[in-house]
Amino acid sequence: MLYQGQSISSTGHLLIGGMDTIKLAQQYGTPLYLLDEDQIRQNCRRIFASMKTAFGGNAMPLYAGKALCFKGIYPIIEQEGFGADVVSPGELYTALKAGFPAGKLYYHGSAKSVEDIRFGIENSVGTFVVDNEEELDRISAAAESSGIRQKILIRVTPGIEPHTFEAVRTGQVDSKFGAVIENGQADHLVQVALNLPGIELRGFHCHIGSQIFDAKPYLDAAEIMLRFMAEIKKRYGYQTQELDLGGGFGVRYTEEDPVIDISSMLEKLGAFVCRYCLEHGISCPKILLEPGRSIVAEAGTTLYTIENIKTIPGYRTYVSVNGGMTDNPRFALYRAKYRACLAAKADQPQTRTVTIAGRCCESGDLLGKDMKLAEPKTGDILAVFTTGAYNYSMASNYNRVCRPPIVLIRGGNAHLAVRRETYEDLLNCDLG
Amino acid sequence: MLYQGQSISSTGHLLIGGMDTIKLAQQYGTPLYLLDEDQIRQNCRRIFASMKTAFGGNAMPLYAGKALCFKGIYPIIEQEGFGADVVSPGELYTALKAGFPAGKLYYHGSAKSVEDIRFGIENSVGTFVVDNEEELDRISAAAESSGIRQKILIRVTPGIEPHTFEAVRTGQVDSKFGAVIENGQADHLVQVALNLPGIELRGFHCHIGSQIFDAKPYLDAAEIMLRFMAEIKKRYGYQTQELDLGGGFGVRYTEEDPVIDISSMLEKLGAFVCRYCLEHGISCPKILLEPGRSIVAEAGTTLYTIENIKTIPGYRTYVSVNGGMTDNPRFALYRAKYRACLAAKADQPQTRTVTIAGRCCESGDLLGKDMKLAEPKTGDILAVFTTGAYNYSMASNYNRVCRPPIVLIRGGNAHLAVRRETYEDLLNCDLG
Repeated sequence: MLYQGQSISSTGHLLIGGMDTIKLAQQYGTPLYLLDEDQIRQNCRRIFASMKTAFGGNAMPLYAGKALCFKGIYPIIEQEGFGADVVSPGELYTALKAGFPAGKLYYHGSAKSVEDIRFGIENSVGTFVVDNEEELDRISAAAESSGIRQKILIRVTPGIEPHTFEAVRTGQVDSKFGAVIENGQADHLVQVALNLPGIELRGFHCHIGSQIFDAKPYLDAAEIMLRFMAEIKKRYGYQTQELDLGGGFGVRYTEEDPVIDISSMLEKLGAFVCRYCLEHGISCPKILLEPGRSIVAEAGTTLYTIENIKTIPGYRTYVSVNGGMTDNPRFALYRAKYRACLAAKADQPQTRTVTIAGRCCESGDLLGKDMKLAEPKTGDILAVFTTGAYNYSMASNYNRVCRPPIVLIRGGNAHLAVRRETYEDLLNCDLG
Repeated sequence: MLYQGQSISSTGHLLIGGMDTIKLAQQYGTPLYLLDEDQIRQNCRRIFASMKTAFGGNAMPLYAGKALCFKGIYPIIEQEGFGADVVSPGELYTALKAGFPAGKLYYHGSAKSVEDIRFGIENSVGTFVVDNEEELDRISAAAESSGIRQKILIRVTPGIEPHTFEAVRTGQVDSKFGAVIENGQADHLVQVALNLPGIELRGFHCHIGSQIFDAKPYLDAAEIMLRFMAEIKKRYGYQTQELDLGGGFGVRYTEEDPVIDISSMLEKLGAFVCRYCLEHGISCPKILLEPGRSIVAEAGTTLYTIENIKTIPGYRTYVSVNGGMTDNPRFALYRAKYRACLAAKADQPQTRTVTIAGRCCESGDLLGKDMKLAEPKTGDILAVFTTGAYNYSMASNYNRVCRPPIVLIRGGNAHLAVRRETYEDLLNCDLG
């Protein structure tokens, strides 16, 4: 099961975008995040084309930067015509420094401070995605004092529970995010928004969760949102301009994950939205979707060096690598599963069952239990797949480990986009 | 339940080391890590005094820096007579830059690379704690080429499973750490070490886990280690010089955690070790212990600002703060429990049950479910207790959130030890 853009050389080396991963490991050192830019662009184009087919011209994908945020990602998604989500002033700052147009930014977050909001307005962020009434008041006040009306979407909780891991489930009523429709809180927020002088209500947002593989939860969410829009129109004469149905398209980490057909999902969704709007006499709003993980996850591969192998007879074999939860905390956080291979033995059958242990002094620092590899040796380069999303963005300096660099691969060439942290960097904020 | 060093002012404000936390929040902003240096020193003295009582002069505590590592911690523990554990070149670098004597450093880690080892030897690290045979060979080679014999301890797995969370349990046979006694792997490592030209074997290390509240697991571990030492002496005539029994002393996060009496635990342990050595004709080795969490956890308090409060009738009240899993990932990782209070209402009864939500766009970003507070309002300062360990050290820039500063409180004064990260810092490694 190779991912798109991957192949195997005649000498059995794993190639990404045609480049030999063993040579890349030698050149840049390990651990190393590799990111196949060509695949990212293909993913962008596939989703954008599917959206155009499904929703006509009146649709725009937004790249959800929290999946992977660094300066070098923004020119790529901008060139592919995407807008972008930001979830903090830090993401906003990164996007702006990369030259991304502020007007195409949607500023999320359930706990924006007064300073965060001011920062967004001063930097002409296109649209705020408003979570709660305090935020609404704060934005209106800041917008007024800047002499503008700030475009916003209201984040609504549709009350849907997709079957996914608890920590990444967001659409249910009991959520820290958004305003609940069924108890009238969302309606109340609309009334407040329509009467605040600094606010221009553009529409609504919902996000039901992550790692969703079929159309059903999206259709359910769309129906709830469209019904809500119809009611709002009836009650207040307000016509929704934009409907953001969030992200969450599943990614294939292992063979256990189903193959997703985003194109067919979106086709169903588009047909449903159009029909519903027609039947209920509401104009079809501009549709926004927020892929993040599905744009970058499969385009990412992390290379490690195996530092030692320890077999405890009757128990298990630990393969220890020079990275782990500091560059990929998803096993520690969610017991996430990954696939991997030995980069110089990519053509060999993966018949050895091993546990891949990270370098941190913590038993929970594993990259995976009972993973399949060819016969590993100390010094081998290990390639862990589908690490493009929520790896670099969640990385830490736990155990004072330096974060790895990001190398972009495009057109058969490698480009260092984020350099490796140094020991000096770790002391950047230490005084005295 | 106030922690040592905490009190409440006549106006109901939480004081730490006599300083008003509301004023500190105003001065330094939030989120803010406060660290009571006076308490840290008291904790150091208490443990060191207990060790002297228990083991006589032949004992030394080592501060386990992975709990909390920044430059400013090292002068404190050095002045208190401690040695220190480091677990990576980054921790080693930090300790050395802070002027900590290299000879008092013990260098841990189960996946040390050739470069890591060279870095340690070039910097004259006192003792390596060796995890496996590959490492032993690498150290010997590096030491030889530097013309020295490197002091080491061998990390041994005693085969004990204390009742603690899986991710922080380390003493069981099925562990990525150390060499197992019962299957002969530890004995093999001793033979190899005794015959390598670059190695000076000083003794053994074990660590059975974290958050341990009674003496029993330590006595069990000590007995296994001493029996192993006696066997090694019989077989190879090798007399152990140092025995490192690890750390793991429990910390009282909530009322559910028992009160720990380290002094009485160590007294039992000391008596046991002396008796065993006498009875079995082995010289009593120098005893090392590695407190980390128990030195700093209760001395730490994190201040946040409440950005909004959302009550979902029939479900729960979410109190959203301007920090969360980025500065304290322990709820997300381990479902860790904390206590908290409103810093300006510390004298009021805590009768409201709330869920404290972090700022990240992730449902799992909580600081705690069903915590008790006085009646919270937007803008209130929230103080979360016992955050001195595994908070700053595990912090990340997820969602491009800047890491908070650390302020040390000593003698009624506040000192900025680590400054707040800036948006510019986030782009430190971004190229182009």
